[in-house]
Amino acid sequence: MYLCILKIKIQNLHNIMAKELKELTSRSENYAQWYNDLVIKADLAENSAVRGCMVIKPYGYAIWEKMQRQLDDMFKETGHVNAYFPLFIPKSFLSKEADHVEGFAKECAVVTHYRLKNDPDGKGVVVDPEAKLEEELIVRPTSETIIWNTYRNWIQSYRDLPLLINQWANVVRWEMRTRLFLRTAEFLWQEGHTAHATEQEAMEEAVRMLGVYAEFAEKYMAVPVIKGVKSASERFAGAVETFAIEALMQDGKALQAGTSHFLGQNFAKAFDVQFADQNGNREYVWATSWGVSTRLMGALIMSHSDDNGLVLPPKLAPYQVVIVPIYRNEEQLKQINEKVAGIVEGLKALGISVKYDNADNKKPGWKFSEYELKGVPVRLAMGGRDLENNTIEVARRDTLTKETLSCDGIENHVKTLLDEIQANIYQKAADYRASQMREVNSYDEFKEEIEKGGFLLCHWDGTPETEERIKDETKATIRCIPMEGDKTPGTCMVTGKPSAQRVIFARAY
Amino acid sequence: MYLCILKIKIQNLHNIMAKELKELTSRSENYAQWYNDLVIKADLAENSAVRGCMVIKPYGYAIWEKMQRQLDDMFKETGHVNAYFPLFIPKSFLSKEADHVEGFAKECAVVTHYRLKNDPDGKGVVVDPEAKLEEELIVRPTSETIIWNTYRNWIQSYRDLPLLINQWANVVRWEMRTRLFLRTAEFLWQEGHTAHATEQEAMEEAVRMLGVYAEFAEKYMAVPVIKGVKSASERFAGAVETFAIEALMQDGKALQAGTSHFLGQNFAKAFDVQFADQNGNREYVWATSWGVSTRLMGALIMSHSDDNGLVLPPKLAPYQVVIVPIYRNEEQLKQINEKVAGIVEGLKALGISVKYDNADNKKPGWKFSEYELKGVPVRLAMGGRDLENNTIEVARRDTLTKETLSCDGIENHVKTLLDEIQANIYQKAADYRASQMREVNSYDEFKEEIEKGGFLLCHWDGTPETEERIKDETKATIRCIPMEGDKTPGTCMVTGKPSAQRVIFARAY
Repeated sequence: MYLCILKIKIQNLHNIMAKELKELTSRSENYAQWYNDLVIKADLAENSAVRGCMVIKPYGYAIWEKMQRQLDDMFKETGHVNAYFPLFIPKSFLSKEADHVEGFAKECAVVTHYRLKNDPDGKGVVVDPEAKLEEELIVRPTSETIIWNTYRNWIQSYRDLPLLINQWANVVRWEMRTRLFLRTAEFLWQEGHTAHATEQEAMEEAVRMLGVYAEFAEKYMAVPVIKGVKSASERFAGAVETFAIEALMQDGKALQAGTSHFLGQNFAKAFDVQFADQNGNREYVWATSWGVSTRLMGALIMSHSDDNGLVLPPKLAPYQVVIVPIYRNEEQLKQINEKVAGIVEGLKALGISVKYDNADNKKPGWKFSEYELKGVPVRLAMGGRDLENNTIEVARRDTLTKETLSCDGIENHVKTLLDEIQANIYQKAADYRASQMREVNSYDEFKEEIEKGGFLLCHWDGTPETEERIKDETKATIRCIPMEGDKTPGTCMVTGKPSAQRVIFARAY
Repeated sequence: MYLCILKIKIQNLHNIMAKELKELTSRSENYAQWYNDLVIKADLAENSAVRGCMVIKPYGYAIWEKMQRQLDDMFKETGHVNAYFPLFIPKSFLSKEADHVEGFAKECAVVTHYRLKNDPDGKGVVVDPEAKLEEELIVRPTSETIIWNTYRNWIQSYRDLPLLINQWANVVRWEMRTRLFLRTAEFLWQEGHTAHATEQEAMEEAVRMLGVYAEFAEKYMAVPVIKGVKSASERFAGAVETFAIEALMQDGKALQAGTSHFLGQNFAKAFDVQFADQNGNREYVWATSWGVSTRLMGALIMSHSDDNGLVLPPKLAPYQVVIVPIYRNEEQLKQINEKVAGIVEGLKALGISVKYDNADNKKPGWKFSEYELKGVPVRLAMGGRDLENNTIEVARRDTLTKETLSCDGIENHVKTLLDEIQANIYQKAADYRASQMREVNSYDEFKEEIEKGGFLLCHWDGTPETEERIKDETKATIRCIPMEGDKTPGTCMVTGKPSAQRVIFARAY
């Protein structure tokens, strides 16, 4: 009896410890801290010993792999192939496109030497001054320059077009203030670089890939996005037009989740890439580029998660279902193992990824909070009474609700439930965004409203001056000029000059 | 009539041109040139504007993607997960493991600055001298140091072990003489880094992963390999024992296709990674690392290809079957398209990847030589007579034979044929290796035999001195001490001292 009480006390203690270990700062208390806590405690990523570079941990990487696989399939379905271009870019290449160099040559990692040698004055190694490169190499911040320098040799005639190529790669931008996934010196991404015979075809490609990104964000990440055009000052360095998908995070701030650029003939001219058209005339090639990065991880985390931890959409969860046994002794565990084996098999046959966690060095309570923290969409638990009754407890991560159901047909129930969860978290995010999106008609009202966060739909006179004034005074930027929805003209909320349509302002990540 | 003759002449001209364009140097004429021609002309890769760095072109990358997918599945089946660690390594990290720094600190890319600025003296950009890093960063040549520095925080107790982590990444080693795929400054690879509680477990892991590599090489690449232990002088810098798989190329030279290292406690000690064992004692962790790279592409190409181009094993071919229509007019093409559509569907249903090339700007002859060059395992061709007879021409890339078969059941025939081809090219490579593997018993004989190439099985006294003498005098190295096969002791062919077993000597890539 005493032993029993002692056991219970130890278990309580264990649960309390587990709870404290995993406790997150709440979103209302400090959203930025909540995000950072969550990324660390859910084992998604951590800062490394190298300033601004992160380590993506296995659980975080497993989500990124699911994103990659899905995006890669979508790129291939739209006719693209993968290739790989060098990590390094000769310094002089960056200067060839005038706007591009302004945007990218500034904060980048520069390789100046190719050898170390033993320190003559003591231990360790030093840079060998004799191994200085004739021309410095830049670690790619993006690959337009090296790729267009390569395309020059690949493109002779219209028959070589279009080139529809994508690359999965790491890139480096020397950011001063970094945040895990959202802004890191090194990050992982894909960059598509396409070459076309006509302006129209290139423009269609840029818009098509924006559509692919939007579809991915909404159907797989369950994150509603707005497709739009960037204002000139927010354009990619070297682009004629930049398209973006913009998402709204739970703190009312915007996050640019992907961009697609119509590059015109800028890079073709900078790298002299011409083709002979069907009449034998030499023309410059038209270009696009488009990319999404590990930043999507940040968008995913911030869109759905709560004060208990991650909430993952079933389509991107490393495992969609976890099953936890609750047992009093080895004999009971054995019976549960047997019962669960059939359920695991049934779930797998339906294409559902499932983990059965019967590790005996952790208590069920610890496991429950662990999988809650990690955002596993569905948790099943089976105890002694369930065994007797042929039932199982089904818990949803998104709503934190649970119910006890018969084991008969549980596999199909879970399958349907996963679809429901996917739809529900999308709807929740869409409802939130709808609640945070409002028309604002005067600059005074704007200054008040922007403090509350959200997407503000405002008339703007189209000038960079007005845009900059708003940014300076309110820290809000034009997220995009929406491509869909109301296009009624009006007058600028700041200057009263004519405005073609409302644009979206927000404070942004 | 004249027009017709002219047409034929133009077609001949076209075929001749196509042939010349694609003509490879023959293997017997110049093997190295043949290899280089083949990599370029089959659109696998090319040199980039950055010294020693290659561009992997879409067709080459598609093969690498197939390799990656298969290896990744095999890693996951053996319990491993993926993660991602930084591209950069602080210079001081390299010095922490004494042997490691000797091996890797010498030829590497060094980042010394993090910003460029506009050249004050004119156009272009220059390195900003004010943006000098306090500590230089090395572009990873391999990641043991940064990973073990990270593992220190991940490992506290035996419960955290084993850690079974793999990374897909790019690495840079500043090679002076580079060759596409075989030796490039930047290359793509995977590197597994595992941490274990016991020496035995780590050793088992190192051997297990060597087995995974051997299985992959033989079953998927159709390349027979010998599993063995490296001599001390060929060991990975920082390893206690290095295991390797060695393959034999068609020119009689060896190629190391993958390595797996038992690292002992070297990196755990260098980075102070200890764990509490089940009795609460603090112990250093045991480690392994293992990797294969885009070098496998070189092994694949050189093992099977011939003077007509690539020969790809069906399991790694980007498409396994190509279908070419031969038609006199649009009407006939339309009929062939309809007939072929059913075959394409049937092949896909069997999981076979197939390309139907009915592009009208290339002649069948051009297509035939193109797909031969690119190593597509099976080519199907359908012409007017085939339409009438319900037949199709089936050509094998490996044997260059063809036969005309009924369309009925062609899909299953192709499926069986692909298996046959996979088995045949493996057998061909295995037969070639068997013919090039021989026991040599005196050093005089060795000096003669090594000129003929191949794997020479010789007794060696186990000393680095003898090994070095042989290398200096004959350019042959010990490829490995085989783990399987004859283990009869003998006497060293050079010194006459005792030898534990025969080892394999060869000249190597």
